[in-house]
Amino acid sequence: MQEALVIFTPSGKRGRFALGTPVLTAARQLGVDLDSVCGGRGICSKCQITPGYGDFSKHGVTVAEGALSEWNAVEQRYKDKRGLIDGRRLGCQAQVMGDVVIDVPPESQVHRQVVRKAASSRTVTMDPATRLYLVEVAEPDMHEPSGDFERLGRALRTQWDIPQITAGLEVMRKLQPELRKGKWQVTVALHKDHIAGPHRVLDIWPGLYEGGLYGLAIDLGSTTIAAHLCDLRTGAVVASAGIMNPQIRFGEDLMSRVSYAMMNPGGDVEMTRTVREGMNALIDTTASEAQVSPREIVEAVIVCNPVMHHLLLGIDPVELGQAPFALATSDSLSLDARELDLTALNPSARAYLLPCIAGHVGADAAAVALSESPETSDDLVLVVDVGTNAEILLGDKRRVLACSSPTGPAFEGAQISSGQRAAPGAIERIEINPDTKEPRFRVIGCELWSDEQGFLDATEATGITGICGSGIIEAVAEMRMAGLVDPSGLIGSAEQTGTWRSQPEGRTHAYLVHDASATGGPRITVTQGDIRAIQLAKSALYAGARLLMDEIGTDHVDRVVLAGAFGAHISPKHAMVLGMIPDAHLDRVTSAGNAAGTGARIALCSVAARAGIEATVQRIHKVETAIEPRFQEHFVNANALPHAVDLFPELSKIVTLPKVSFNKGGGDGDGGRRRRRRA
Amino acid sequence: MQEALVIFTPSGKRGRFALGTPVLTAARQLGVDLDSVCGGRGICSKCQITPGYGDFSKHGVTVAEGALSEWNAVEQRYKDKRGLIDGRRLGCQAQVMGDVVIDVPPESQVHRQVVRKAASSRTVTMDPATRLYLVEVAEPDMHEPSGDFERLGRALRTQWDIPQITAGLEVMRKLQPELRKGKWQVTVALHKDHIAGPHRVLDIWPGLYEGGLYGLAIDLGSTTIAAHLCDLRTGAVVASAGIMNPQIRFGEDLMSRVSYAMMNPGGDVEMTRTVREGMNALIDTTASEAQVSPREIVEAVIVCNPVMHHLLLGIDPVELGQAPFALATSDSLSLDARELDLTALNPSARAYLLPCIAGHVGADAAAVALSESPETSDDLVLVVDVGTNAEILLGDKRRVLACSSPTGPAFEGAQISSGQRAAPGAIERIEINPDTKEPRFRVIGCELWSDEQGFLDATEATGITGICGSGIIEAVAEMRMAGLVDPSGLIGSAEQTGTWRSQPEGRTHAYLVHDASATGGPRITVTQGDIRAIQLAKSALYAGARLLMDEIGTDHVDRVVLAGAFGAHISPKHAMVLGMIPDAHLDRVTSAGNAAGTGARIALCSVAARAGIEATVQRIHKVETAIEPRFQEHFVNANALPHAVDLFPELSKIVTLPKVSFNKGGGDGDGGRRRRRRA
Repeated sequence: MQEALVIFTPSGKRGRFALGTPVLTAARQLGVDLDSVCGGRGICSKCQITPGYGDFSKHGVTVAEGALSEWNAVEQRYKDKRGLIDGRRLGCQAQVMGDVVIDVPPESQVHRQVVRKAASSRTVTMDPATRLYLVEVAEPDMHEPSGDFERLGRALRTQWDIPQITAGLEVMRKLQPELRKGKWQVTVALHKDHIAGPHRVLDIWPGLYEGGLYGLAIDLGSTTIAAHLCDLRTGAVVASAGIMNPQIRFGEDLMSRVSYAMMNPGGDVEMTRTVREGMNALIDTTASEAQVSPREIVEAVIVCNPVMHHLLLGIDPVELGQAPFALATSDSLSLDARELDLTALNPSARAYLLPCIAGHVGADAAAVALSESPETSDDLVLVVDVGTNAEILLGDKRRVLACSSPTGPAFEGAQISSGQRAAPGAIERIEINPDTKEPRFRVIGCELWSDEQGFLDATEATGITGICGSGIIEAVAEMRMAGLVDPSGLIGSAEQTGTWRSQPEGRTHAYLVHDASATGGPRITVTQGDIRAIQLAKSALYAGARLLMDEIGTDHVDRVVLAGAFGAHISPKHAMVLGMIPDAHLDRVTSAGNAAGTGARIALCSVAARAGIEATVQRIHKVETAIEPRFQEHFVNANALPHAVDLFPELSKIVTLPKVSFNKGGGDGDGGRRRRRRA
Repeated sequence: MQEALVIFTPSGKRGRFALGTPVLTAARQLGVDLDSVCGGRGICSKCQITPGYGDFSKHGVTVAEGALSEWNAVEQRYKDKRGLIDGRRLGCQAQVMGDVVIDVPPESQVHRQVVRKAASSRTVTMDPATRLYLVEVAEPDMHEPSGDFERLGRALRTQWDIPQITAGLEVMRKLQPELRKGKWQVTVALHKDHIAGPHRVLDIWPGLYEGGLYGLAIDLGSTTIAAHLCDLRTGAVVASAGIMNPQIRFGEDLMSRVSYAMMNPGGDVEMTRTVREGMNALIDTTASEAQVSPREIVEAVIVCNPVMHHLLLGIDPVELGQAPFALATSDSLSLDARELDLTALNPSARAYLLPCIAGHVGADAAAVALSESPETSDDLVLVVDVGTNAEILLGDKRRVLACSSPTGPAFEGAQISSGQRAAPGAIERIEINPDTKEPRFRVIGCELWSDEQGFLDATEATGITGICGSGIIEAVAEMRMAGLVDPSGLIGSAEQTGTWRSQPEGRTHAYLVHDASATGGPRITVTQGDIRAIQLAKSALYAGARLLMDEIGTDHVDRVVLAGAFGAHISPKHAMVLGMIPDAHLDRVTSAGNAAGTGARIALCSVAARAGIEATVQRIHKVETAIEPRFQEHFVNANALPHAVDLFPELSKIVTLPKVSFNKGGGDGDGGRRRRRRA
């Protein structure tokens, strides 16, 4: 029997095959990643390849014309009907007729790599839990009776090496009509759990199914719920949407929801129903935007903090409100989405919840860990996901620590006098001239600064309505840098600061950022109370990070990653001026965007990533801030605002205010202590 | 270290143990079947044992007083509180102090044997899928955070060798309060699937749970649904109840229900809802009768024919109404009972459906096979389960064949002029004096025969309302034996038969059994149409049996087992006179009662039995009567009533009627053929 050498690129895998061997067969035998839904029947076109002709000296072969069999009728029919890029062949039709080099383009790879984001070299290899398989099922035979489902199982075993299948009653109900409609050829969506057990048939279509297959990555936050609809074949996000978590009416922050459950019998059930309804509404919106039908959405990966985790599952979160903060369950969960009443998906859709790390460090923190993988970092990285609670990870290859810190909602613009959520009209950037003490700012929805021409026209529609979380951080930091605020956090009077914008308010002062009250608009100020709220929040965040640093025995981190939708908008410089995060070189402070959502997407695209993060979470060392005396100590010491003076020399110009003690932890605080220690 | 010999009875297991070893520990190390729910904590009292003292020459030991440690405070407390039979000890408290013989009474055996029925030597070893375990769970630790559920899993692993657990959200919801109520000691009901996978927590109670644990064996027939509530610890049936299948309003027999589904869009959904509602009502009734709460019922095993199987699962049965009679699924199913909307059980209860053998031979036939185990029989046994369809099994150790035969509802008293279901007032036994041609009969609900004194008084309450299935069989057979009916099935006139009870009815005759019309009561007759209906039914049954005999190559069976509620009431002699079943010695024809229900009970009590019947069903050879030309041939030939003349010499006195052809298959028919063949 004559043989020829076949070399696949980009894998470089090679082998000798009998003349006449289909390229797809050769690829399979070599373990080359070449897609096929129809199993080589020439109908799905997923196995497209590009043969190379000519001299391939680096591979040591010269490929002659005729190295593959001639273009055939099946390929022509496919090309006429759907189109085929010139030079492409169908791997199941083209046969090896001589030595050949065959390129597998990315879209023909099942396990293609998806670059996660430009700023990162991290790639995710597509390996979703749910895939499509075309299969020919034997017809029933009265003399050898067996169920249609059992024959489907047999066909998947022989044609696709799927050892065992199972299915819910929804699929059982469809099975017989679809098999007959497809004349015993059907496409099934099979879901494999990454742990063990049989593959689960999630849906079935007659013949070759050419519709879509999607999954949802859901980031279920206390305040907002965000969903990304991903194509399970390519990993591409086809639609994203977010809504306010409708549970907000039971309490702004997590602990007020836990209290609601404690104080109101049945309150947890009410909150569970509410969040599930909200998720269904969000899913509807996302799917409509992408014109994807519910039936096409077969999976959801959900990340959330422990309280949302329990409320979503229908578990009373009361234990999470008191020491020892015991989770009902911490491991990952793989369940039918309908158990969570997620009716806006395929009725057989599966839901996967990432594991929780601890009672205060949830599946969202696990998702951040999955996205940022500190456990693979060569240098010591601090990952901070800022929300109503901050989840903090610190570690490197050798070990990873985690904790959660109760920052409260100030960073999200709540409990701030002129605060508001990040929405058009909110001030998101602010600069204060250290000499004139005059502010300039930008609002969400407008590219112009407030002192640029056309700003008022451009913001006429939205108005200038308040300050959002990233705005308040910049405002406080800028006030500090402009000498309007002293290290203890006190706003100076007009005399002390030299600007009329410092205006008395009660027994303290407020800094006037913007005043539209003459035309009936808002008067936007940063009050002494706002400074205090930000001080509390940043102290909590800083103290959590310090606690982990103590645990690891370091007073220095190599780099800082700011995660969270909010983290994406914080200016690293201002964060460091405020003392939100430990000092690091400014260029080593990066934003990871919504890392929790990214982690959810990674878990959606890869079952290996699910197994990986489950193993990682087992190894993460959890530190409980609530009972750690040093946390209180760090918290109190971190209250002042003198950080980063070394990095920002202009801070040395800060006026010294008369000492007015409002907090025994004030004074020169932690920053001073740390500078001393380093000296 | 000093050791002593410990011998357990009845197992005979023996071993040497260090003095001071608790008896329970010794038993476990030897693999002796000694129960314990609390794991040796002295609180469940399941490990009671009886030490023997004195000379045990057959074991070669003499047991001295003091061979066990002294009666202790734990035992005394238990005895005071609950009572303990004299001589009994708690195996977890009593320690080995010298050579000893220890008897494990049946109620202390987990895997005790349950004698199935007096008439059979068949025993079932208790090995239910669901068992109780008392477990001590570690308290949560903030420094080593883990979920309560994960700690429960760890406790079950270390304390009970349960490798892995899972649970639904219902249990997750209860977990935290119950653990705290029980001060970290809880009893869990764990369900193991007999195939693979983790144990499933079905329920959880604080501390030692002392309530009951029950399962339901449900025989879901086309006409009636019967439920037996079984204690999962002892196997005892604590309540039984039955109702009419409420689907009856969609059609009396299976095919009319399949037609209903075909003719009415959504008809299958309607029938599914109806049967599930019916089952819930039945479960309620059964549980109330036994004063068992729904929460205590953690399992249901369901047996049914294929059409009911599909309708229960919510699968349109249309394919079962036409060749090739393809089942949607044939394997056994283990699922959450709530998937079947069985809400009258524990919310986490599991349901197990036995496998179907073929499109016409369902899980009920599998249950009969499990009950009667023809696959272990030394002699060739014919098992006939008579209902609207007859399921027929024929086989022995070497092979087992199965088929289903469409007998129609005549055997159940339907489509019979004076027919009725088996209920008080129905004639169930009948004798006709061959000389006087006068009948005497008994009705359900009365022990007296109709010619005995006090009969009329005794039946005054119920009346004499009609003839039930077993009654009509006896009536036709007795009429044949009394010479009122000729071999072709024709009822003779008064002149031909010599009795005024043979009365003209249209162009044929009817035999008057009972006439209460003078007092406004019914006039009960057996009409020519009734004889024809019984002939059709019995021919179908006989033809099915013959077909299997042909397949095996025999014209003789060693024994016959009549199964089914109806089978329990048929007189073997009359069945043979009618030619319902192939000839066999009368004493080799036995009744198995409701064998399908018994099979369901066995599967409920033993996971090994589930695995066993699944394997058996794979090996059973199915014969499809609907397409087998020989079935039609046998059916036509079996129409006549001359069977068993050899066995019942009085049949030779039968008058010969003038030949009136009403059916080309009539005449001397099969009986004659068979007699000739044997000659």
